[in-house]
Amino acid sequence: MLWFVGLGISGFKSIPSEALDVLSKADIVYLEQFTSPIAKSDLTKIKNATKGEFRLAKRWLVEDGSEILKNAKKKKVVLLAYGDPYIATTHIELRTRAIEDKIKTYSIHAASSLTSMIGECGLHFYKVGRIATIMSEMKSLTTPYYVIYKNIIEGNHTVLLLEYNQDKDFFLDPKDALNGLLETEKGQIRNVISPSTYVIIASRIGFKDQSIISGKISSLKKTDFGKPPHTVIIPGRLHFTESDALKIFGQCVDEPFDNTEKTEKISIQMMKKYVPMVREALEEVEPLYKDQKEFQGILENAELYVKDAEKFLEDGQDEVAILSIGYADGLVDALRLAKGLEPKM
Amino acid sequence: MLWFVGLGISGFKSIPSEALDVLSKADIVYLEQFTSPIAKSDLTKIKNATKGEFRLAKRWLVEDGSEILKNAKKKKVVLLAYGDPYIATTHIELRTRAIEDKIKTYSIHAASSLTSMIGECGLHFYKVGRIATIMSEMKSLTTPYYVIYKNIIEGNHTVLLLEYNQDKDFFLDPKDALNGLLETEKGQIRNVISPSTYVIIASRIGFKDQSIISGKISSLKKTDFGKPPHTVIIPGRLHFTESDALKIFGQCVDEPFDNTEKTEKISIQMMKKYVPMVREALEEVEPLYKDQKEFQGILENAELYVKDAEKFLEDGQDEVAILSIGYADGLVDALRLAKGLEPKM
Repeated sequence: MLWFVGLGISGFKSIPSEALDVLSKADIVYLEQFTSPIAKSDLTKIKNATKGEFRLAKRWLVEDGSEILKNAKKKKVVLLAYGDPYIATTHIELRTRAIEDKIKTYSIHAASSLTSMIGECGLHFYKVGRIATIMSEMKSLTTPYYVIYKNIIEGNHTVLLLEYNQDKDFFLDPKDALNGLLETEKGQIRNVISPSTYVIIASRIGFKDQSIISGKISSLKKTDFGKPPHTVIIPGRLHFTESDALKIFGQCVDEPFDNTEKTEKISIQMMKKYVPMVREALEEVEPLYKDQKEFQGILENAELYVKDAEKFLEDGQDEVAILSIGYADGLVDALRLAKGLEPKM
Repeated sequence: MLWFVGLGISGFKSIPSEALDVLSKADIVYLEQFTSPIAKSDLTKIKNATKGEFRLAKRWLVEDGSEILKNAKKKKVVLLAYGDPYIATTHIELRTRAIEDKIKTYSIHAASSLTSMIGECGLHFYKVGRIATIMSEMKSLTTPYYVIYKNIIEGNHTVLLLEYNQDKDFFLDPKDALNGLLETEKGQIRNVISPSTYVIIASRIGFKDQSIISGKISSLKKTDFGKPPHTVIIPGRLHFTESDALKIFGQCVDEPFDNTEKTEKISIQMMKKYVPMVREALEEVEPLYKDQKEFQGILENAELYVKDAEKFLEDGQDEVAILSIGYADGLVDALRLAKGLEPKM
């Protein structure tokens, strides 16, 4: 029998009440602590609530799983984990293997920091987009960078989980993560992250010394966020109730603002460049063809497609808009090339 | 003093243990039940754990908030809510108002169905994209439809929350939600939803009679999903550990498969159409210009831009790919129009 039990986010006191009985009746309780550190005082309380054997489980022991599964074949075994037990995919896999091994499994869900921190910051959970993770050994942050980009253009908030290595007692500093993203911006130049991007640093959520500090990246350069765990949240479109709550629940170094206004969709960035460029190229070439009737249709078409492109963009049909402006540009450039003019692409 | 306390997802037994003390010491406990129904037996247990006054709170009472805030000015007041207290934005707003009113607030987080159901289905939480909601009175489902589209093309899973109206005791049937999406597909034709889309219906998550049934929409047409609450999950890209877990944790009417393969990005759909079309148009026009040197550059450029378009798409630069194929098409069509041929756009 194998129980997957969540501890919640505030130490032993946040454990679901039904789990207390499960702990006291278990033959073995494993506590995994590789997803977040657990305080000594909480460790003592967990041990006291355990009548059977208590064991600390390192990452490899849970990933390997054989000891836990072997014991669960004959005994009541509990795997106790910070937050909700199934946020860690390792636990889902272990449950799969247990059921395949004909071991009965039970789950007790608990508060996850992922849902809790959003509410603690005053943000709306239904506006959170895909989560990204930043690890110190990552060669490049283009993956999290584009997760943020895609979230921001949809107005979504992005949660950036930062590396935590229990064995090395290492936690990635939020400032290092943000510097990495600023570096990535230099190569990708999609206007996703700049020193004036508004960010929230949520630290030790659920604990007494929880802190929520937000502001422009440039304003937080010298801020000491204290002990881990830390999470960075890049807000997307902010409803006024979200800005209000953020100001009241946390410490805002700057007035909260909408990050989405700076970051334009690639399609909009392109249209801003190409529509005036094609119009100008068209005006330049028109006089050269004024006596050639067979080319009038091409000139007219080019003008129509520029207008269509603008209309498609307005309608949210971004891809068709780009296709249209590209097409108009091609029509115009063919005429330019035929007259020995430089193409405008 | 105002406490926001989550009940978790399994009735009274899932309440965090620290909350028991808070309940027993409170002067007034409000139980809101507009986000999910709460069983009578749980209601009794909550009442028994409350030494002070117990009151049921309808949606309007929480939204209005004045009674709760007035009482919290002088008394210890608890607002107890299903799941995690701050998934409902109403509670965030109430907390904001309380703090503005100089009322001390406290939060006890608990398991949310949003995180729990993902783990119960064996899916990876970090792959969940933006959530969508489907209400019966919605005139059109284009908003949730495009949330699914955007999630699917990124490989993300989509959680579709279905309407629950406590006062009318109404819950939207998952089959009605899916039929609405199939209808929307007819108008939008982005290949997002079809009778062969793989969907998961997660019902009564956290309760004894929890059920997870999945399969193609067409296979679930006559399935009775039982009592609410139900949530529809449209999986995106499925890791094999996710498919395995889904099969083992739930009941799969069909073998789980990847929905992302059918739904192509608009940019890819376009490229599949335009690349061969432009190539063909180019081949057709080439012989007509074989004696006109001044047009050779245009023909060569067109060919290069078709190749570039393919390369950009491979590199994930979708917008530049579309711009390039549009441009190549424009170059070719200018030459076609000049010779009196039909344009190919």
